[in-house]
Amino acid sequence: MFTSDSIEATVEMLSALPTIGRKTAQRLTFFLLRQPEDFTQRFVATLLDLKKNVKFCSTCFNFTETDPCPICSSSKRDSGVICVVEEPSDVLAIEKSHEYFGKYHVLHGVLNPLDGVGPEDIKLRELIARLDGSVHEIILALNPNVEGEVTTQYIAKFIAPLGIKVTRIARGVPIGSDLEFADEATISRALQGRGTV
Amino acid sequence: MFTSDSIEATVEMLSALPTIGRKTAQRLTFFLLRQPEDFTQRFVATLLDLKKNVKFCSTCFNFTETDPCPICSSSKRDSGVICVVEEPSDVLAIEKSHEYFGKYHVLHGVLNPLDGVGPEDIKLRELIARLDGSVHEIILALNPNVEGEVTTQYIAKFIAPLGIKVTRIARGVPIGSDLEFADEATISRALQGRGTV
Repeated sequence: MFTSDSIEATVEMLSALPTIGRKTAQRLTFFLLRQPEDFTQRFVATLLDLKKNVKFCSTCFNFTETDPCPICSSSKRDSGVICVVEEPSDVLAIEKSHEYFGKYHVLHGVLNPLDGVGPEDIKLRELIARLDGSVHEIILALNPNVEGEVTTQYIAKFIAPLGIKVTRIARGVPIGSDLEFADEATISRALQGRGTV
Repeated sequence: MFTSDSIEATVEMLSALPTIGRKTAQRLTFFLLRQPEDFTQRFVATLLDLKKNVKFCSTCFNFTETDPCPICSSSKRDSGVICVVEEPSDVLAIEKSHEYFGKYHVLHGVLNPLDGVGPEDIKLRELIARLDGSVHEIILALNPNVEGEVTTQYIAKFIAPLGIKVTRIARGVPIGSDLEFADEATISRALQGRGTV
């Protein structure tokens, strides 16, 4: 279809990225072709730097350039509380709230028996290894879906015998939303989790 | 915000691409980080190949790896007809219809006096230079908006004295659409352009 194999190759490669369809890939390719030579040079250098510089923190498994990561090595953050999330992007979402001052643990996945993802496929053993005497609370902040629920229950059951408090983030109607458009499960959960005004 | 400057740099760079917002850029960055090392290597190699291999056809100004491009050098395509489009992606759209067998000319823009784009800023002189005795029809296939209209009128006026037939693609209701949702201008144009059944 294209008058160039390189264009076809680029469109195909970009289409393999999440959220990018073939039409958008085509548009991006033509955009790149219209840019000056040094744009692509900088583009490529940034991508190579990304892969070269970024690794996993050996403590919390978030992406980082230093090991341990800035959060793990910060003395200003409470080492007694660990917030457990599924992906590095969840750390970012929670940090944006400016409401949490403990440490994190990134599981890099959730339990999903149907897809064959078991406890040994996520960073669960690494979480357990962090539970020395100094940790007094584990906050489970997994996504509110079936897999997140299964994983939350599994971890809670695992940690409870260790005498460490296990909590989970509240599920309810999101701020700024309209009750009219909230689904039944969310409303039901919001009612169960109601508190004093 | 990020625990890595390289992540921040990548997110910023990807956000600069069309159709990609900061949230998508972040998602793409985390996706790239999760891929094996050779994914980024292939990604980068493809982009470098794109810029190295693809240039403009010196005849029609479409993107190509060979000069003249496969369409310009094809003896199966009618050299007597030139279809004038705004961007290389428009060539692709027309080729997909399998309805056109002439040659192309890519203007790389349209006249836009408000943005200071004049006749010398698009490949118009290069189009005129192609109008030797063998060309008998120019089909104007510019986008149906104000700038496309201005450019269509300008080129038609320019070429008419040369005794070459100038046509434009029909504007009307798109196939598969619903008349109810067509705008007034389109309906009005479809009525004016009505033909026998």
